[in-house]
Formats: sequence, structure tokens, C-alpha cells
Amino acid sequence: MSTDKLDSSLELELAALKEEGRSKSSERIIQGYVPPEKDRGPRYQLVGSDQAYMRFNSNAYLSLSNHPELIEAADRATREFGVGPGAVRFIDGTFIHHVGLEERIAGFVEKPAAKIFNSAYTANCGLALAISGKNTHWIGDQLNHNSIIRAMRISNVPSENKGIFRHNDMADLKRCLDAVSPDMDRVVVIFDGIFSMRGDFAPINEIVEICREYEEKFRDGVITVVDDSHGIGAFGKTGRGTPEYAGAWPDVVVGTFGKAFGVNGGFIAGSRTLIEAVRQKADTYIYTNPLSVADCAAAIKALEICDSPEGQALLTHLAAQTKRFRKGLDRLGLESIDGPHPVVPLMVRDTAKTHELVSYLYDHGVLVVGLTFPVVPKGDETIRFQINACHTPKDIDQVLDLLGAFFSTP
Amino acid sequence: MSTDKLDSSLELELAALKEEGRSKSSERIIQGYVPPEKDRGPRYQLVGSDQAYMRFNSNAYLSLSNHPELIEAADRATREFGVGPGAVRFIDGTFIHHVGLEERIAGFVEKPAAKIFNSAYTANCGLALAISGKNTHWIGDQLNHNSIIRAMRISNVPSENKGIFRHNDMADLKRCLDAVSPDMDRVVVIFDGIFSMRGDFAPINEIVEICREYEEKFRDGVITVVDDSHGIGAFGKTGRGTPEYAGAWPDVVVGTFGKAFGVNGGFIAGSRTLIEAVRQKADTYIYTNPLSVADCAAAIKALEICDSPEGQALLTHLAAQTKRFRKGLDRLGLESIDGPHPVVPLMVRDTAKTHELVSYLYDHGVLVVGLTFPVVPKGDETIRFQINACHTPKDIDQVLDLLGAFFSTP
Ligand SMILES: Cc1ncc(COP(=O)(O)O)c(C=O)c1O
Ligand SMILES: Cc1ncc(COP(=O)(O)O)c(C=O)c1O
Repeated sequence: MSTDKLDSSLELELAALKEEGRSKSSERIIQGYVPPEKDRGPRYQLVGSDQAYMRFNSNAYLSLSNHPELIEAADRATREFGVGPGAVRFIDGTFIHHVGLEERIAGFVEKPAAKIFNSAYTANCGLALAISGKNTHWIGDQLNHNSIIRAMRISNVPSENKGIFRHNDMADLKRCLDAVSPDMDRVVVIFDGIFSMRGDFAPINEIVEICREYEEKFRDGVITVVDDSHGIGAFGKTGRGTPEYAGAWPDVVVGTFGKAFGVNGGFIAGSRTLIEAVRQKADTYIYTNPLSVADCAAAIKALEICDSPEGQALLTHLAAQTKRFRKGLDRLGLESIDGPHPVVPLMVRDTAKTHELVSYLYDHGVLVVGLTFPVVPKGDETIRFQINACHTPKDIDQVLDLLGAFFSTP
Repeated sequence: MSTDKLDSSLELELAALKEEGRSKSSERIIQGYVPPEKDRGPRYQLVGSDQAYMRFNSNAYLSLSNHPELIEAADRATREFGVGPGAVRFIDGTFIHHVGLEERIAGFVEKPAAKIFNSAYTANCGLALAISGKNTHWIGDQLNHNSIIRAMRISNVPSENKGIFRHNDMADLKRCLDAVSPDMDRVVVIFDGIFSMRGDFAPINEIVEICREYEEKFRDGVITVVDDSHGIGAFGKTGRGTPEYAGAWPDVVVGTFGKAFGVNGGFIAGSRTLIEAVRQKADTYIYTNPLSVADCAAAIKALEICDSPEGQALLTHLAAQTKRFRKGLDRLGLESIDGPHPVVPLMVRDTAKTHELVSYLYDHGVLVVGLTFPVVPKGDETIRFQINACHTPKDIDQVLDLLGAFFSTP
């Protein structure tokens, strides 16, 4: 059979996406890594270009992906145990590395237990599958990550069991809590720790306090969940993420090893009972191979480094470069959203100019992401810069110089 | 806040699962790999035991996980490019290894294009997200894998847009096709290639032929999709899987690198337009980090080996050991489901006896999976044996001897 008829229809759907401005341009392909040297950070080579690029759009905030100790840990695990687990967790696909990483990350986020997943994406799906029932009501921030939205779908949460509050708006969170039907047994309030498009963060202390007021209204109380994928390892004095910064730990923490820690994989951390429920009920945990031992070993090493003086120095350097970049934007009179997180949005507020600047930076060896309507509201067109610990003061200044040159030419 | 109230409710839910026989026992943990030696295959060491175990429950049919060339490929990629991609595909998380693996697997399954995912689980979810619309009707085999069921959920397919046919029953497939509302634009017929609990396979040639008869009834036709996670690399003369064995390729092929090939990761292969639709619309592709370069490099190497004389020899050995095991069961008068796939079910048809035999084999150094109600219907209690290319004739005979001893003692 041929799929010509399907293809014709899909072509129309793709054309419509493009028309709406939702289409993703073709993927650039990294074909070379150039290690850092003296006062400049690493560079990347792309297929079809002779230039070397700085990544100002990487989530690997601590720049550990090419750390010799992570590479060594990954390699050692692979040589001893092989490249893949060969089975799912409950059918003897569990290796000491999986369990070791679970213990380590649970301790890191100050919870009794944790389960790892292939990604934070499937972790969110797994959490919803594990704890959502007919009488579970979910409340989320309007800017929550796609994986949380899809987690509601995969676990079949009906629309009447969902509430959405305006971004970081505590009065609106209260409105959502007030609106929960008294028939509900369980309320889950779930939110990104760091909002990756803006670099701002959830006021976790306030959220936790507000939820406590409603605790007695529901049989199982109000459970708070942070997905701190962009926070853990990158934010807070010791890299504990948004809970550390905001001064309160939610009941459940979801996160990733694929951003600040520079590896891959996700996790859920919480009470022992919750984690056992995840093991028994989360299909995205049960019915799919777990991470390779290499990923686990590298992630364990990343956590170790984060908790060492070296990690502390990386966090300090990261914070300093973030500040340096933000100050530079100020000096140039450019608008951002304030905050200490290494996601630094530059508010361009114009679609054409955003595209122009992304191209300009690309032509001058800097990779960034432009966000235009409908990804952000009209008028909020943004370029997202992400500072990484591998960026040197010279790298930062080079980008600032480019911005200065771009905005000074009429 | 504490989650005591939630935990109490979850405890009750977990107790109910246990009561129903759906609870998974605690995970065994692999802590050592003992390479093969002379006439015996590899052995595994478990936490809390001094014994060394054969895995007769691994999906790594070609036994490539510990192949020196895969390990070398993984290690080289990591040393050159690092342990993690640091970003999603469309934000410069695309490395040559991702694209290389996509080209290679597309060619392997004879399709123009492919996209890789972190797992076959998220590939199925991504396919549904990419091609399912309001007027898409889905038809599936009743024994389809959990990830296909969840794919329907994550992409919001309403129950009136779904049909389920009795396992491998072509008359019932026709009934489902006849029942599709004429308002539907697109019909997708999706099925496992190999059914992992039984080792039997979908009659793909018949399915494709039947679907062709309905092709003209719907605007976009009837699209056939095989998830051949247990077939590709393990089944068919050259390891092309169930389509090769059954003599017909469906329109779309979903599969995994985490079973026969011994690595991790999933893929969708099909027309160029379909794959572009996946890239633009499959959230489980778009919003999550891709595989590490190590996984990709190892999977590319596995595909190369599968297509080499060495791979052909592995497939031949695998088929011979499967036959040896099946013949041994016959000789012992034990019941199985016939077929050439390395999944060989032993029909025990008794819950207590199944548990007893699983324990007996474990005590004698053999890891297998027992399937009891409600995972299989009452009376169909089974032990699943999975033959791998690393199993030697002596390993096979050792297991057969154990089965003989178990069933001869009253
Ligand atoms: C038919 C089928 N699809 C998908 C999967 C999941 O594969 P993966 O581990 O790549 O997610 C499996 C294995 O459990 C399977 O049997
Ligand atoms: C809040 C949030 N959750 C989950 C993810 C997905 O992370 P992963 O790549 O581990 O699936 C992201 C990143 O894209 C994120 O920002």
C-alpha cells in the first residue's frame, strides 16, 4: 500500500502549522565539539558551516556533559555491564546503577525515596498514572511544561477535574482551590519550578502555604508537586533548585538529569509509599526499558560533583556569569525579566526583529532560541539566552558586544 | 506538609492491587556480569545472592549489549561529544549520531525516513500525537502493548473512535473496519508484530490485504502500523522482523533499539511526509532530550553487525537454540505455543505451579518470568522463556534438565 493519500492530508496540516507560525525550522546538526581553551569556552561545529559556535541555548547549566569524570564513569559502567539493560525494571532490567542513582537523587532533594525514568517527560506522565484516580483534581500553572499537560491526558483526567491558574498568580491559585468539587478525594497542585521560557520561578513557599489551608477539606489533602527540571542543579545556593531558593519543599519533586547535570533521564522523589505506588502503577516506568547504566553512572557522578567544592565553584561561576550578562543587558538598555536564574530572556517585542537578531547572532557564531507568537503572546517576542558554567567572561562579553552592535545599527 | 493522608490511601490502593494478583514483587538487582566462557553463556550476579544466573528473560535476543564493538562505539561517541545532548532536538540538541541512526534504521526497515525516540514507548505516543485528529479512527489487536493503549490516551482518542479485534482474528478485524463511521477521514490499524507474552506474530500479509479493501472508503485511506519491538533484529531471515517473516511491510514501522539490538531507544519509520509530521507534532519527540550519542553510536553498530556475516551467524545460532529448546519441551511432553520466535512460552496452566517453577528455576540459577491471572486469562498461566544468541547448547540443555527434574517429581 502507499500512504499518498495520508501524505497529502499531512502536507496540508503541515502547511497550516507553518501559516500559523508554529512550524519548526529544520534541525541544525552538531558534528564537532571543540574543548575550551584559555579564556574561551567550548565551541560546536555544525554540518554545512565552517564556523565554530557558542551554545547559548543549552540547558546543561553546569557544563558537565564533557567532564572527564562523567565520561569515565559512563565508560566504566558500560564496559562492566554493557550498553543496554535488555529488559524492563521488574523483569530483571534493574542494575545497581539504577538503584544507586535513585538513592542519590532522593537524598539530594531531601526525600525518602525516588524512582528514575528515561526523562522528566515520562516521569510526569508516570506520576499522573500513579496517583490520579476518578476523584483526583489537578491544578496547574498556565505556563506549565508540555509534559505536565500530556501527563493529564495519558492518565485520563477529565476537564472537569482540572484547574489552571494564571502564571504565578496566588489569588488565582486560591480561586482554583475554592472551585474544587467537595466530592474530590485528592487535589494535586503541580507547577514548574523554573519557567523555561522566562527564567522566573514559582513562589513555592507561598504555594505550599496556601495549599496547607485547604489540606483538611479533602480526604487525601492537597499534594504539591514541583517539576524543577530547570532548577535542580542550577539554582539555589547548593544547587537544590527552586525549593532551596524559595525556602520550601513541595511534597513531590520531579526533575531531570538532562539539563543542569548534563546527562539524560528523569525522576520522581517523594514518600516511600508514593514511590512504591509509582513502581506498581506508572506505566511509563513499568513497560519500557530503563536508562542505560552509563547514563546512571554519569548522573551519579554529576550529583557527586554538584555536592563537592568543584560544584560549588561551578554554581558560583554560573551565578557570576549570569549577573555579568544581565548587567550587560542593562547597560545596553535592553529589557529582560529580572531574576537570578541562568535563563535570561531578552524581550525584543517584535517578530521580525527577533528573527533578524537570531540570524545575526548565528552568523556571528552564537546559538540562541527566538520565541515568537504563538509560542509567546504577541508583543512578548523574546530571545532566550541560557548561561552555562562553561561560558567565560570573554564569551559573555562577546555576546554583549554583538547585541550592542546589532541594536546600535539603525 | 506531610503526605500521610495520601500515603494511607495509596497503601489501600496497593493492597488492592496485591489482592487482585496484579502487584509486582520487589525488583532483583544485577550487580555483576560474568562473561561467557567456553561452552557456557554469560552469567549475572544479583544483590543478596552468591549464585550466578542465566537470563532467560532478556529481550536482548542478539546478545549485543556486551559486544566489544558496541561498547567501543558508545565510548568513542561519549569521549568526542559528551554524555548528554543538553537540549531537545529542535534547539540544537541534534548530533550527527541522531541523524546517522535515523538514516540507518530507515534503510533497515525499507522506509524512506525515520525519527528516533527515547524508547518505543514514547515512539508509539509520538506517532499517535502526530497523526491522530478528530476524524481518525484507530483499530488495534486486543493484545497490543501497553504503550499503544497509552498512545491512544495521550493523543485523546475518544472511545467511539476506537475498535479492538480479537487477537490475530482477521474476521474480527473486518468487523472493526466495517464498523468505522463513514464520517472518519483516516483509519489506522495498529498491532504488535510479535506478541511478547506468547511469541506468536501478526499475520501482516493478511492484515495488509484486508486493509487494502477498505482503502477507498476513507479520505486518507487505511494506514497499517506494526510495532515490531520484539521482531526487528530477532526474527525473519535477515532480522528484518515480522514483516520479513510474514512477507509484507505495513505503511509505518515502530520499533526499539532496546531489545534484539541490546541498546536503548525507539523509532518510527515511514514516508518522508509522515516523519516530518512527527518532527513537527509529536510532543514526545519535541519536548524531551533525545538519546545520548553513546546510545545512538551503539545502536548504529548493532545494525551494522546485524547486517554482517556475524549478524547472520547470530540469527542462525539464535534460531537453532530456539529450536533446540522447543524440541526439548516437546520431548518432555510440555505444552507451548508453536512458532519460530525466541519467545517460548511454557503453558503451565496453574497459578501455584507457575510460582513454584519460577522459584525452582531461580534457586537453580535461571531467571524467567511467570505470567498469571490477571496478566493472562485464568487457565493460561505461563512461564515465558526468552532464548538469546548468547545461550549455548549446554545452557539450553541445563534448563531443559531442570524442567525435566521439576515435572518428574510428583
Ligand atoms: C510491542 C512493544 N512495544 C513497545 C515496547 C517498549 O519498548 P521500549 O523499552 O523501547 O519502550 C515493548 C516492550 O516492552 C513491546 O513489546
Ligand atoms: C519543566 C520541564 N519538565 C520536563 C522537561 C523535559 O525534560 P526531559 O528532557 O528530561 O524529558 C522540561 C524540558 O524541556 C521542562 O522544562
